[in-house]
Amino acid sequence: MEFEYRRRINYYETDKMGIVHHSNYIRFLEEARTYWMDELEMSMSELEKEGITIPTLEVDCKYKNPVTEGDVIIIRHKITEFNGVRMLVKYNVTEEKTGKTVIEAYTRHCFTNKELRPINLKKHNLKYYNAFEKYLVKE
Amino acid sequence: MEFEYRRRINYYETDKMGIVHHSNYIRFLEEARTYWMDELEMSMSELEKEGITIPTLEVDCKYKNPVTEGDVIIIRHKITEFNGVRMLVKYNVTEEKTGKTVIEAYTRHCFTNKELRPINLKKHNLKYYNAFEKYLVKE
Amino acid sequence: MEFEYRRRINYYETDKMGIVHHSNYIRFLEEARTYWMDELEMSMSELEKEGITIPTLEVDCKYKNPVTEGDVIIIRHKITEFNGVRMLVKYNVTEEKTGKTVIEAYTRHCFTNKELRPINLKKHNLKYYNAFEKYLVKE
Amino acid sequence: MEFEYRRRINYYETDKMGIVHHSNYIRFLEEARTYWMDELEMSMSELEKEGITIPTLEVDCKYKNPVTEGDVIIIRHKITEFNGVRMLVKYNVTEEKTGKTVIEAYTRHCFTNKELRPINLKKHNLKYYNAFEKYLVKE
Repeated sequence: MEFEYRRRINYYETDKMGIVHHSNYIRFLEEARTYWMDELEMSMSELEKEGITIPTLEVDCKYKNPVTEGDVIIIRHKITEFNGVRMLVKYNVTEEKTGKTVIEAYTRHCFTNKELRPINLKKHNLKYYNAFEKYLVKE
Repeated sequence: MEFEYRRRINYYETDKMGIVHHSNYIRFLEEARTYWMDELEMSMSELEKEGITIPTLEVDCKYKNPVTEGDVIIIRHKITEFNGVRMLVKYNVTEEKTGKTVIEAYTRHCFTNKELRPINLKKHNLKYYNAFEKYLVKE
Repeated sequence: MEFEYRRRINYYETDKMGIVHHSNYIRFLEEARTYWMDELEMSMSELEKEGITIPTLEVDCKYKNPVTEGDVIIIRHKITEFNGVRMLVKYNVTEEKTGKTVIEAYTRHCFTNKELRPINLKKHNLKYYNAFEKYLVKE
Repeated sequence: MEFEYRRRINYYETDKMGIVHHSNYIRFLEEARTYWMDELEMSMSELEKEGITIPTLEVDCKYKNPVTEGDVIIIRHKITEFNGVRMLVKYNVTEEKTGKTVIEAYTRHCFTNKELRPINLKKHNLKYYNAFEKYLVKE
């Protein structure tokens, strides 16, 4: 299962090159993940109230074509690895009008308690474990 | 007593207008405040460990002349009101080479506990109260 | 005429106080302005192609109640002064669920050419002049 | 040849997890590159005046240990591939007091004209070509 998140580029996300600053895409990926969780009636805030958080272990982002203020990007992402301890998410981001690829990326995550020590989500929150498991797309 | 904080402008702080995005100056002001606290052997981290924080109640910033990547700004600021409950800080920011005024600003703050409820710093941390009091410049 | 812009708070917009960093609201206000222009079939990109830009001359923001990741804010704003040379925009931002005021703010702007020299919009782009004029709410 | 850049973490760079938001490290890496260029009497602004820019083609960042406001990081980086058309930079970032690794990263870049079309730096700016060439560390 693949998810789609539509996002307009803001002025403050551009730099003097006239295009989106490359660091901001990392933020858009996070945005896509949290909107997707919202849609599934999960939420980072709910999870954090239980003392669970999902830090990022690695980001890899390949920049293909730039976008700028007023452009709209479509972020498609899917979970390609998940075992309750670690998760890998892959992203393909395109520009809405031209369909051109903007970036290709993946992010690795783990699940931790408040002290940022790794936990197994299966033992700590079965609802979320099942949700992530359900949407796992093996490649 | 007035303080000085020297700061180079980063590429990622510019926008497609080719100059620093106006929201970033609010961050530079915070930076100046925390560096000043460091210099006086105070620190936000230390204060927060005691459950005290210093939220911003108001920001007013007048933009005079733009700066861009590679420029260096000098932030001069002083505490002009302080009573343990509230604090007013005023800033004059200039560009190093030309001496031109970049922004003029002030920020209002209060002191709160972790739940963001107002406290009197005098009762909760006399060391910090005395430090702020000492550097108060009445206008 | 007052405009409304609905906006979810992102994780990356919070700070270690657990709430939105105060500098980010300045960005949300810009977002509201550009979305409003989009709605009226105007756009910053179109304007900038003609060599016109709308720098911010002043920001004043009073912080009333904090919001955090997952919260939704409603930005209501209106143009209260406009003469083709300068513009004043006022904002009231509330949290969707509770209706509580989050911030109250205003921003002052002028219209400039690419070299950031002031121009009169009436002489340089009548379409945009008329649009801003039409939505002026005198107080 | 390896370079070092020392950098204090700002409050506005943290998120509600209490640590630096992972997107900000991408900005710190850019900062390290531009400070290094400054030190060698090169500058992005100078290069951009000639119509040359250095976009990022890829970022890969592995997060090892978190840092927070007030911590100081040391960014050590070196150019490990360079041929005038493309460049690979590797980074090791540690926390000053503990010496712990914070992130390990690399960034890939090319050189382009204003229209973001690839150029060979050797043909367009020999001074900068020679500087990058001189500091190339083959692995």
